[in-house]
Amino acid sequence: VEIQNVAILGLGLLGGSLGLAIRQRKLATNIVGWSHREITRLGAIDRGAIDEGQPTPQDAVRNADLVIICTPVGIIPKLLEQIAPALRPTTIVTDVGSTKHTIVTAGDKVIGPVAKFVGSHPVAGAEKQGISAARETLFDNALCITTPTQHTDQAALKTVEQFWAALSMRLTRLSPTEHDHILSDISHLPHLIAAAVVMMQEERALKMAGSGFKDTTRIAAGDAGLWRDIFVDNRFAVIRSLDRALAHLRDFRTALQANDGNKIEAMLKVASDRRKDMSS
Amino acid sequence: VEIQNVAILGLGLLGGSLGLAIRQRKLATNIVGWSHREITRLGAIDRGAIDEGQPTPQDAVRNADLVIICTPVGIIPKLLEQIAPALRPTTIVTDVGSTKHTIVTAGDKVIGPVAKFVGSHPVAGAEKQGISAARETLFDNALCITTPTQHTDQAALKTVEQFWAALSMRLTRLSPTEHDHILSDISHLPHLIAAAVVMMQEERALKMAGSGFKDTTRIAAGDAGLWRDIFVDNRFAVIRSLDRALAHLRDFRTALQANDGNKIEAMLKVASDRRKDMSS
Repeated sequence: VEIQNVAILGLGLLGGSLGLAIRQRKLATNIVGWSHREITRLGAIDRGAIDEGQPTPQDAVRNADLVIICTPVGIIPKLLEQIAPALRPTTIVTDVGSTKHTIVTAGDKVIGPVAKFVGSHPVAGAEKQGISAARETLFDNALCITTPTQHTDQAALKTVEQFWAALSMRLTRLSPTEHDHILSDISHLPHLIAAAVVMMQEERALKMAGSGFKDTTRIAAGDAGLWRDIFVDNRFAVIRSLDRALAHLRDFRTALQANDGNKIEAMLKVASDRRKDMSS
Repeated sequence: VEIQNVAILGLGLLGGSLGLAIRQRKLATNIVGWSHREITRLGAIDRGAIDEGQPTPQDAVRNADLVIICTPVGIIPKLLEQIAPALRPTTIVTDVGSTKHTIVTAGDKVIGPVAKFVGSHPVAGAEKQGISAARETLFDNALCITTPTQHTDQAALKTVEQFWAALSMRLTRLSPTEHDHILSDISHLPHLIAAAVVMMQEERALKMAGSGFKDTTRIAAGDAGLWRDIFVDNRFAVIRSLDRALAHLRDFRTALQANDGNKIEAMLKVASDRRKDMSS
């Protein structure tokens, strides 16, 4: 991948880490960054995540060959509208949002007529937020899902995939809707459930929690505002995932109430075998 | 703590790790071990977790000053009956079971008249099982809950607590019932929920799961048979814990269906703030 100018919109954990990774691998000659707060832009320059900051998203994207949107999911559609007039026809716009249907629909509609849009979701993140938590290794070996549609420019898709591959990411393609259903199952629902497990605890019990509890609930420490956007946008898929989880929990409840040890063990064994098949 | 002879009944992860830790800290002059399988006893000797193996629990405890039962929870009451006739009046018996009411009731009744019984629960473990996974550091800095009753010999309680403290464990006391309620909340229910989250996944989705999912579901890889015993024994408390978690999940569902972003964010924030207050 050879890119002259990259613009990163949103300079939190993902945007900051992306700038660091691009610089380390020399994937661009110039990295322009935008965040609505000046102190964040200065912090990103200070950490070496961007070469220069711009006070508006339009200014940031003006000379960009590749624009990567790394803001919270909820504001991406509006941001696409804001930057569209400032793009050149050859500019490729992508994003790192954790939901894809709404964003890609907006991208095809708003960016499609004036430039190129490709939806991406690098499945990387952490409980800690902000530029201070950014690290150049965040994307290494993680999965990146691209979500092309019938409107997606094939050359732009290829460039975007080469870009993520150059960051040592593993690539896969899904439709935006498939993406949202799968991520609901493996990411959004587990987050909701971890939050519920924390919420139900009494203070005294929390003090006695061990490493298993901490592992199980670590994701619940994630930023409530970022996750609100994800849940609101993907709520129909999350409700479906939740209903499937609730069915299993009700099966457990029935087996507990019936004191049916064989049934409990059989259910636990299905889960244990499947989880053992994954890497730790 | 100065103990001549320790007997460890059950030589899996916990029993094996206990033997290694006792030996490393020179807390006993002789460690006798029992497991129903000879190959496990030989393996424990081979790993240095015990000095000698005995083919029956009675033989193993005959000269013991301290007996520590490390078998699955479900067989502990029966094992207490088996060893009772072989104990000396000064012998202290404790256990490492993850549930306490049933075990301590049996201990008070069966061991109380002939020796001393103190219930313990060192809150340490891992997904991996067996003597091959044993390590001498398993108990370091972990919490150990002792569960004395009105029948507990105070000197024996003190000796048992000194023993766990000598393994660098942090100590706390709870009644057996309090213990079972708290552990239901922070350990048994999270295990059940992690299992449900794994069970509801489609194969294709599992392949895309990232580190967050793996953290959240790691405990579900635990041994189904061991956990069956825990759930059967503590089922009433687990049902109560489950109902509280289900109430929070239903609140989430209602908020999702109402597209109530403020409510979702407020709930996530409670969880996030509480989880951030814990160490990672």
